[in-house]
Amino acid sequence: MLNAIGVIHSPFREKFGIPRQPGLAPSAVGEAVLVPPFDREEMLDGLGDFSHIWLVFLFHAAVACGWRARVRPPRLGGQEKVGVFASRSPHRPNHIGMSAARFLGVSRRAEGLALRVSGLDILDGSPLLDIKPYVPYSDRVTAATEGFAPTPKPALDVRMDNETDQFCRDYAGETGRNLRQLLVECLACDPRPASQRDEREFGMRLWDVNIRFRVRGRTAEALSCANITDRPADQSDS
Amino acid sequence: MLNAIGVIHSPFREKFGIPRQPGLAPSAVGEAVLVPPFDREEMLDGLGDFSHIWLVFLFHAAVACGWRARVRPPRLGGQEKVGVFASRSPHRPNHIGMSAARFLGVSRRAEGLALRVSGLDILDGSPLLDIKPYVPYSDRVTAATEGFAPTPKPALDVRMDNETDQFCRDYAGETGRNLRQLLVECLACDPRPASQRDEREFGMRLWDVNIRFRVRGRTAEALSCANITDRPADQSDS
Repeated sequence: MLNAIGVIHSPFREKFGIPRQPGLAPSAVGEAVLVPPFDREEMLDGLGDFSHIWLVFLFHAAVACGWRARVRPPRLGGQEKVGVFASRSPHRPNHIGMSAARFLGVSRRAEGLALRVSGLDILDGSPLLDIKPYVPYSDRVTAATEGFAPTPKPALDVRMDNETDQFCRDYAGETGRNLRQLLVECLACDPRPASQRDEREFGMRLWDVNIRFRVRGRTAEALSCANITDRPADQSDS
Repeated sequence: MLNAIGVIHSPFREKFGIPRQPGLAPSAVGEAVLVPPFDREEMLDGLGDFSHIWLVFLFHAAVACGWRARVRPPRLGGQEKVGVFASRSPHRPNHIGMSAARFLGVSRRAEGLALRVSGLDILDGSPLLDIKPYVPYSDRVTAATEGFAPTPKPALDVRMDNETDQFCRDYAGETGRNLRQLLVECLACDPRPASQRDEREFGMRLWDVNIRFRVRGRTAEALSCANITDRPADQSDS
């Protein structure tokens, strides 16, 4: 009954480091690629009038794990549990995710018709189930209250040494990808697991780059960047 | 792969008359009923902190018709076509719908665990696929522009004669349902098809009541109400 209509390409090749909601990393650019028979330009007629779109997708990396009745949302520090339906966790019945993303335009690719988007919080390779326009008068609920997920705290400061900075510049020159800005936005969100909020070193992957970083106080420090051999998106759920 | 986790009960027993987006009829109250094994209270722990929830559901009445590449949104007067992905039409690949609704509370029913909601724009009997909290800081996109679906025009004035008014009062006394207010909200949205915006008489169903109405100029007039024998939600797609 349910068919993928395409696939989402994002900088996030593994779960670790993905911003916990869309819009937190405006530089998280990617594409939602419609594949045949859904790759017809006419199916998008009029979408250019909207600034934002909903991407409805499958949390494919969580499917094999089934669902959980209760989960630990990162926003609650990873300790407290809430009901899965009170969360946006991937570990939900039917594993359907939805994210609002900025809609940048449409390009034809070999594999299909690509919608360029930014502000992604979606794992690379996620199957696309639907695209809808973001309709402000019904989707932007001004009366809605925040629950346990209030607007995020002020972000971390982010620092990097000259070598890392230079790596980012070279990478941008080669690929056109603004690695530096995305790195800053992702580190500012503090990707550390709630149970490991100490000064240890972490590795995080953006596109085909492995980044080492640590956090001290309110400052995240990018320690190094290194190209890694590209491989398919991490399908595990650890 | 996709399983209904429950069912949506709404006043809308047929497509005609359903407000074209959620929130237009605050009196459109109903329930999203989680059925076993998804009817565990713990799965909703923490949801009470949120004022609004997303209902993700199947446009079940449209499934048999498949999908269309282009559709005629009512907001464009029913004449102009747009791509299905630029619309919220039911006639879409995968037939997934989503609506933000006000969350009123939880009640145990014989069939399962019921989330009471208002502001519905969903056909009665729609299979429920997911429930998510409405998270203002990511779902309420302040930068989003309106596309071809700007805030609806000023509503129609609504009038009803004494007999109709009395029917609504009696009905409310018997059922607890605020038929009068829902009728006013639905007629104010002008349910007439774009191709039939004249003064002819129409019939519309809310719960088990058939309402006759007509529109003259900017005034909708409820002509009569009558109980009808309850029957399952209209599964056709005409």
